Amino acid sequence: MVQLAPTLQLLKEPYIFPLIEQKLIEVRKTCPDRSILNFGVGDIALPLASSLAEALSQATREMTTMEGKRGYGPACGYSFLRQAVANHFFKECQLTEEEIFISDGINRDITEMQELFSKDIEIGIIEPTYPAYFKVSKLSGRKNIHLLPCIESCDFLPQPPEDHCDLLYLCSPNNPTGVAMDRTTLQKWIDYARAHEALILLDAAYAAFITSPDVPKHIYELDGAKECVIAFYSFSKSAGFTGLRCGFTVIPKALKVHDGIEKIPLGPLWEQRQEIKCNGIAYPIQRTAEAAMTPQGQKETETQIASYRNCAHYLKQGLDRLGFSCWGGKDSPYIWWKTDGRSSWAFFEWLLERVGILSIPGTGFGTYGEGFVRLSTFQTEDCAKEAITRISSLRE
Amino acid sequence: MVQLAPTLQLLKEPYIFPLIEQKLIEVRKTCPDRSILNFGVGDIALPLASSLAEALSQATREMTTMEGKRGYGPACGYSFLRQAVANHFFKECQLTEEEIFISDGINRDITEMQELFSKDIEIGIIEPTYPAYFKVSKLSGRKNIHLLPCIESCDFLPQPPEDHCDLLYLCSPNNPTGVAMDRTTLQKWIDYARAHEALILLDAAYAAFITSPDVPKHIYELDGAKECVIAFYSFSKSAGFTGLRCGFTVIPKALKVHDGIEKIPLGPLWEQRQEIKCNGIAYPIQRTAEAAMTPQGQKETETQIASYRNCAHYLKQGLDRLGFSCWGGKDSPYIWWKTDGRSSWAFFEWLLERVGILSIPGTGFGTYGEGFVRLSTFQTEDCAKEAITRISSLRE
Repeated sequence: MVQLAPTLQLLKEPYIFPLIEQKLIEVRKTCPDRSILNFGVGDIALPLASSLAEALSQATREMTTMEGKRGYGPACGYSFLRQAVANHFFKECQLTEEEIFISDGINRDITEMQELFSKDIEIGIIEPTYPAYFKVSKLSGRKNIHLLPCIESCDFLPQPPEDHCDLLYLCSPNNPTGVAMDRTTLQKWIDYARAHEALILLDAAYAAFITSPDVPKHIYELDGAKECVIAFYSFSKSAGFTGLRCGFTVIPKALKVHDGIEKIPLGPLWEQRQEIKCNGIAYPIQRTAEAAMTPQGQKETETQIASYRNCAHYLKQGLDRLGFSCWGGKDSPYIWWKTDGRSSWAFFEWLLERVGILSIPGTGFGTYGEGFVRLSTFQTEDCAKEAITRISSLRE
Repeated sequence: MVQLAPTLQLLKEPYIFPLIEQKLIEVRKTCPDRSILNFGVGDIALPLASSLAEALSQATREMTTMEGKRGYGPACGYSFLRQAVANHFFKECQLTEEEIFISDGINRDITEMQELFSKDIEIGIIEPTYPAYFKVSKLSGRKNIHLLPCIESCDFLPQPPEDHCDLLYLCSPNNPTGVAMDRTTLQKWIDYARAHEALILLDAAYAAFITSPDVPKHIYELDGAKECVIAFYSFSKSAGFTGLRCGFTVIPKALKVHDGIEKIPLGPLWEQRQEIKCNGIAYPIQRTAEAAMTPQGQKETETQIASYRNCAHYLKQGLDRLGFSCWGGKDSPYIWWKTDGRSSWAFFEWLLERVGILSIPGTGFGTYGEGFVRLSTFQTEDCAKEAITRISSLRE
């Protein structure tokens, strides 16, 4: 008899993002006249930039011709896109196209990368953070998981652990705390990884939002990073791609792992694995990602990012002014809001009921998230202003 | 020290499809004037149908407006597409949208579905067949794998095994043999699965090519199939989608599996797993898939399929006439050509060198593929004619 894997019991617990979406649907159904301000799952609020849409249509038209038709593409992306990414983002870090692996977004690559490694390795995961790293580690039957606190007492700058880990999940700027690791903190992690012959899987989804001068735009600027860091990027939040699905994973050539006999480069192994498991990303979507890096695409998407930044700035200032404790909103599109002593879920419900503000309870990102809610700032400035007006009424 | 999974040694063996593509690149480089007829990896030869391209562009334009913008979609597809698939393909089988799960093509879903099941189950895989099922089973550390011969002595109609299997990988119409299982053979597999409380994972990538009246268009027409068959479909070959990536997986509501305590439906578990692992398929691609099922889309894609069918027909007849032994080419876009006693690779090299015909050696699809090569018939009829002319010169 075919038997489910015992770890699948985990799937019976609801997953935070669909749960919040469901909550929104229910509220809209039961109170259709209620105005809800959505700072929930962190989806984009602005439409696709027109030069990107033009690139998508153009690539599609191309595919209708005998000369321009495109079938299966390379599993890790077309050379034109790998090259464009290397030039656009990593020229100063001297990374080249062979070190860039195109993906359908961070989620899949960052959770599947661990499949390359022995079942016995020790996995460290900062917490609270994006919950998929932990969920997938457990689902795949991993037992040696260390939760590394990313909490108020360390200013939400998680520090390398005392004990030994082989594989480390970091997210910076962090989702949900909104705090980005500075140069000094990141260097400590790299030094730890080198000392322990460990690897860092860095979720860099929000790199485009970094503004602080002491936060490096890319970890590969730091000494030794190329030997031990695989970084995962996405066009989702930098170019409004949540509905298009494209990102990239950086596996530097210098990054080598032990196969039992010798140290070998990981990049080619990942590529071979991808050739078996998938057939790459749609050609027109890859052309759209390329367009996001042209001067015109940059101009348009930068305007969108600036708008989300304004929303974050306005919310953060407003909450500060009202005397609430909150973090983030500077180098990231998230604000981590400390509750007034209520539990995350109670505060979430209170905000939703009293002022129609949809957040996400901090515990959705791990047990260390208790006592907080996350606000996504992928919203308009007007929406942020309205939110602060409503929140100020809570103080009256 | 982070250590690679021992199964990754498997990745050191080259994978057949990139290997053949590489071969083609080399030949074109060393002999640029040589005319090569490509019956290799089985990619489409015709451009994207214009009504499909129009749907893609239309959905993209929609995304540039505030009303039409689309962010994260449901992990298993938009309701409009799930519903369209259910109505278009499975009205007579009475399947509904909740039983349809949109994917980025068959490859990923069919190889990842096994992750839901205990590590100890017995997996049966017909052979020769699409090599990813076996490769991924091995890569993920599965030990109990039974190869079920799909060979000449059983007319390439593999029969259920004597011993017990829990999970069965079938591919019908089969890639590479080109032979589709008839109603009687499929029913035997279903009966086996029910008797053994096993599940069948059926790769139905080439269903659109079925013409024989004794081959059911969909396995769900058969008695008991809904209890034990998960079927995987793709728009790749039916609508020229290899470069766009969209397919769907059917998990009927009646299909239940044991979780240690009770039998529970598998569909909702798969959906929850997908919500954690991925963020769905690009919205405009889903609209394009929908367009493939409209009367106009049908008309255009049927013309393409007819053209590939003509190529298959011409090649099969030609090879028969020349006295070669070959199978398939009727209900599928593949011809399975028995060598003249040479090994698969020797015959492959001989065809390429002597007449410039690119095939795939049968051993690329498993050891039972020795003594054969596969021809993909995703080509024009002119190309088939030219091939037969060249092949006839081998007989002189």
